[in-house]
Amino acid sequence: MIKCNIPKPTVKRLFLYIRCLRRVDVSIHPTISSKELADRLSLNANQVRKDFSYFGKFGKRGVGYRVTKLRKYLEKIAGITTTWNLAIVGMGNLGKAIFHYKGLEKSSFKIVAAFDKDHRKIGKKIGKGFEIMDIKDFSSVARKQKIDIVLLSVPASAAQEVTDIVVKSKIKGILNFSTIHVKTPEDISVEDADFSIFLRALIFSIMYQEQCL
Amino acid sequence: MIKCNIPKPTVKRLFLYIRCLRRVDVSIHPTISSKELADRLSLNANQVRKDFSYFGKFGKRGVGYRVTKLRKYLEKIAGITTTWNLAIVGMGNLGKAIFHYKGLEKSSFKIVAAFDKDHRKIGKKIGKGFEIMDIKDFSSVARKQKIDIVLLSVPASAAQEVTDIVVKSKIKGILNFSTIHVKTPEDISVEDADFSIFLRALIFSIMYQEQCL
Repeated sequence: MIKCNIPKPTVKRLFLYIRCLRRVDVSIHPTISSKELADRLSLNANQVRKDFSYFGKFGKRGVGYRVTKLRKYLEKIAGITTTWNLAIVGMGNLGKAIFHYKGLEKSSFKIVAAFDKDHRKIGKKIGKGFEIMDIKDFSSVARKQKIDIVLLSVPASAAQEVTDIVVKSKIKGILNFSTIHVKTPEDISVEDADFSIFLRALIFSIMYQEQCL
Repeated sequence: MIKCNIPKPTVKRLFLYIRCLRRVDVSIHPTISSKELADRLSLNANQVRKDFSYFGKFGKRGVGYRVTKLRKYLEKIAGITTTWNLAIVGMGNLGKAIFHYKGLEKSSFKIVAAFDKDHRKIGKKIGKGFEIMDIKDFSSVARKQKIDIVLLSVPASAAQEVTDIVVKSKIKGILNFSTIHVKTPEDISVEDADFSIFLRALIFSIMYQEQCL
C-alpha cells in the first residue's frame, strides 16, 4: 500500500533509485542492501529505508532486496510502466526544442499533438507526419488523442490564458515551462520546469569541488 | 566552515531552503525553527538540521534562526551573491530558448556570449547587441568575456567534440543539455539538465494526488 502525502524529495529520490538499479549488473549483484544502494547515491541507509516505507512493505531484514524485483516494483510505483500522451502547447523555440528532445523514454512518453495560436505556425509540418494545430481545436484533439499531459511552453504573458483553455479538457497535468505560476483546478497537477535548478546545482559543485580536490 | 563531499540531495535542498526563506514575511516571522522550515517543505526537522550541519555552525538551540541572517548566509554558500558569466554553445531551438529564458536571476547569471559552428548562423543578431559567434573563436572570447559556464545545447552527436574544445579554456563548469554523458577534466564540473525529471515528478503527483484527494 502506498502512502498519501509522500514528501517531494522522496519522490525525486524514487527516480534516482530506479536509475541506479537499472545500472546494477544483476548477474554479479542479484541482491542489494539499503546500505549499498545508499552508498551508490551518497545518501544514508536510514533515508533509503524511510523512503521505501512510503512505498509499502518489501525486502527482508538482513537479506537485502532482489534487484530486478525491486526495480520493477519501483517502476510500477513511478508510473514508468504506463504510457503517457503528451501535447506541447506553444511551438516557439522551446516548444520545438522539446518536440525534438531525444531524452524522453520512448516507452513512457509519447508526444501526440502540438499546438499554437499563431496562424503563421498552424498547419506547418514538424517532424514526420506532425502538423502544428490551432489551440482552438484543443478540446476535440484532446478527446481523440487522449492527451494526458500538456507541456506548456508559451510566454509568461499567455500562460494563464492557455492554461484556462486546456484545463477544460480531461487532462491530468501540466508541465509548466513558463516562468509564472499558473492556477489550475484542484484535480489537475502542475509541476514547474525551472532549468535554473540545474544551473544552481552546477555552481554549487563548482564552488565546493574546487576546495575539495 | 563548509564540509566537503556534501551529498547532492543536500545541495538541491539548499536551494529549496533559500526559496522558502525568501517567501517568509520577516515583519511577522523574524525567526524560524528547523521544525517550521521542515514543515513548509514537507521534510522532517532532523533532515534540516543534518543538512545545515554540512554548512557550518549557526542558530541557537530553542531560539531558531533569524530568517534574514539565515537566508543571506545560505545565499552566500550557494554562490548566489556572485555573478556567473554564461555562454551558450549551440544556437538551435534549445539554445535560442535558453537565450530568451526569463527565469534566470539577473543578479546571479549573465549571458555574455553565444556560439555555433553553422556558418548560416554565425554573425546573426540575437537579442540586443548580441551576435552568434564562431565556436572556433571560443578561447579568445572566453578570455575576454571571462566565461565561467558553458550551457551546452548541441545535438548529442556533437556534444563530446564541442566539450573537448571548450574545456581547453579556463571555464569552470558545463551545464549539459545534450542527452549523452560528456567527459571533462577533473577540475571542470558537469551537471546534466534532464527535463524528464520534472515530467516524472509530475506523473507521480498525478498518480498519487488522485487517490489522496
